[in-house]
Amino acid sequence: MIKVGIVGYGNLGRGVCLAVNKAKDLECVGIFTRRDPSSISPVINYPVYSTSELEKFKGKVDVLILCGGSATDLPNNTANILKDFNTVDSFDNHGKIPEYYSKLEKVAKDNGTLSAISIGWDPGMFSIARMLFGAVLPDGNDYTFWGKGVSQGHSDAIRRIEGVKNAIQYTIPKEDALDRVRNGENPELSAREKHLRECFVAVEDGADKARIENEIKTMPNYFEPYDTIVNFVSEEEVKKMQQKLSHGGFVIRSGKTTEENSEILELSLKLESNPEFTGSVLTAYARAVARLSKEGKSGVVTVFDVPIKYLSPLSEEELRAHLL
Amino acid sequence: MIKVGIVGYGNLGRGVCLAVNKAKDLECVGIFTRRDPSSISPVINYPVYSTSELEKFKGKVDVLILCGGSATDLPNNTANILKDFNTVDSFDNHGKIPEYYSKLEKVAKDNGTLSAISIGWDPGMFSIARMLFGAVLPDGNDYTFWGKGVSQGHSDAIRRIEGVKNAIQYTIPKEDALDRVRNGENPELSAREKHLRECFVAVEDGADKARIENEIKTMPNYFEPYDTIVNFVSEEEVKKMQQKLSHGGFVIRSGKTTEENSEILELSLKLESNPEFTGSVLTAYARAVARLSKEGKSGVVTVFDVPIKYLSPLSEEELRAHLL
Repeated sequence: MIKVGIVGYGNLGRGVCLAVNKAKDLECVGIFTRRDPSSISPVINYPVYSTSELEKFKGKVDVLILCGGSATDLPNNTANILKDFNTVDSFDNHGKIPEYYSKLEKVAKDNGTLSAISIGWDPGMFSIARMLFGAVLPDGNDYTFWGKGVSQGHSDAIRRIEGVKNAIQYTIPKEDALDRVRNGENPELSAREKHLRECFVAVEDGADKARIENEIKTMPNYFEPYDTIVNFVSEEEVKKMQQKLSHGGFVIRSGKTTEENSEILELSLKLESNPEFTGSVLTAYARAVARLSKEGKSGVVTVFDVPIKYLSPLSEEELRAHLL
Repeated sequence: MIKVGIVGYGNLGRGVCLAVNKAKDLECVGIFTRRDPSSISPVINYPVYSTSELEKFKGKVDVLILCGGSATDLPNNTANILKDFNTVDSFDNHGKIPEYYSKLEKVAKDNGTLSAISIGWDPGMFSIARMLFGAVLPDGNDYTFWGKGVSQGHSDAIRRIEGVKNAIQYTIPKEDALDRVRNGENPELSAREKHLRECFVAVEDGADKARIENEIKTMPNYFEPYDTIVNFVSEEEVKKMQQKLSHGGFVIRSGKTTEENSEILELSLKLESNPEFTGSVLTAYARAVARLSKEGKSGVVTVFDVPIKYLSPLSEEELRAHLL
């Protein structure tokens, strides 16, 4: 059995719990939280400890699944944890991946540990599609569309506007753009042509809705480059929408093998629960990290480095006989 | 530069020529044929040799891309070639992969060579999807649909019927079944429910069309388990259809992360040229075989064993910075 620990218990930690529980070759030694452990009732009945107790588990856990955020948790904590443990995380700040990688690579090599970073669906599954599609169809373009799903960053940006009580923002891929890409047109697409932004906003009593709508629609980077729809709804409606964590998206590569012949490759995900699916991907890569570490591998790996056979509980013979 | 040789010059060999020509880090030492080399004018102006001259190239080529068929060419020849060369092939007889693997594994290990087998889109890209999707979404089912595209085996079967001059058979996925799978219904689908078979048949003058249609529709395994449409057309029409080598298909996995939440993962390919795309995949894996062999790896590998970074001409740093 592979022994895993789960660090952090928000939506993602909950998703990891569920995924570890489904994996017959994994056992969970515990959930580690910065909150009062007694305040947490995990979805699966695993023991809950304070993160301050982590060091007692050194040598007793094959891999820690880090469920913190990419803004501060992972950049601040992973390097320190990696001194004593193998880790897997979902670091998703694309622009800062090289810096994060370099920092962790040194720690991992110095300590003989192994870390899989940026695991999930984007980065993760979508990265595999972008890289693989580009390698097998070099003369072409790739397009990533996200949604329909909630963007936390855009929702937060709306909530910072004066007079807004609560808000949620959906990123929606435009069907017309998807169709053009799927038809092999290889279009140049602006941000506005690819995605629509739809906002549901609850405001304070007497707030100036026209001003708020204008502030949203003209917000640089976040909304100005897009067509944005603003709906004013009750706070209850926003809260209800916040319960549903569906998401998804598309990676499409369109390219030519000759002047005459186009080939279109597409990966699409339709997720009813973004954190449950991300937790499930993290769990499969936790299995890979435990195995690779046992083979003596150290350092930092991404989805580009890990042979996919390591993700499966099946033997190599079974994989070749049934899935090839 | 990675030095490749191309063994066999049919539709697939032609596709490999085109793909190697697009790869700036690969050079082609030659095309090897069992036919008279002077009878071949390759699509790219690479030198053409007789396969009997292959042995002169020992030590002068990093990997041979084998473009023979899976019925006899590859089972008969790969083991012998593998004594002296690294290879990559598109062996696609799914049921015989374990046997093919075992035979080659011994030869490769004894001779320190490396062979990537069953590379293409199915097996190949579709195998990656089946394995990866299953690992990250274990509680679910996967479905592979092929088409619309030509099945050579079914076309051959029709041509063996008395009175048939020529024929082509298209395998067509049923939209209704695709929709049910994409909706997360997790249906149990019979062969008849998944695919339709449409045949275009040219017959001898005075042939009994009713008998031929009946013989096709009742042919065990090939057509009996399916809804089959038979169209009688001229030989010219069949020949024209045989020029177009488009194909494609879908791998869809539908599964649950909890009782409430379904997740749907889908890979789809829409190929205007099946052999050109397959040749392009083989070429990317030829790059991987050359690199892995240089690192000292020997034996037999499949798409499950090769980290995808080896397929790309980009550096690991570039991949992390731009595609993760």
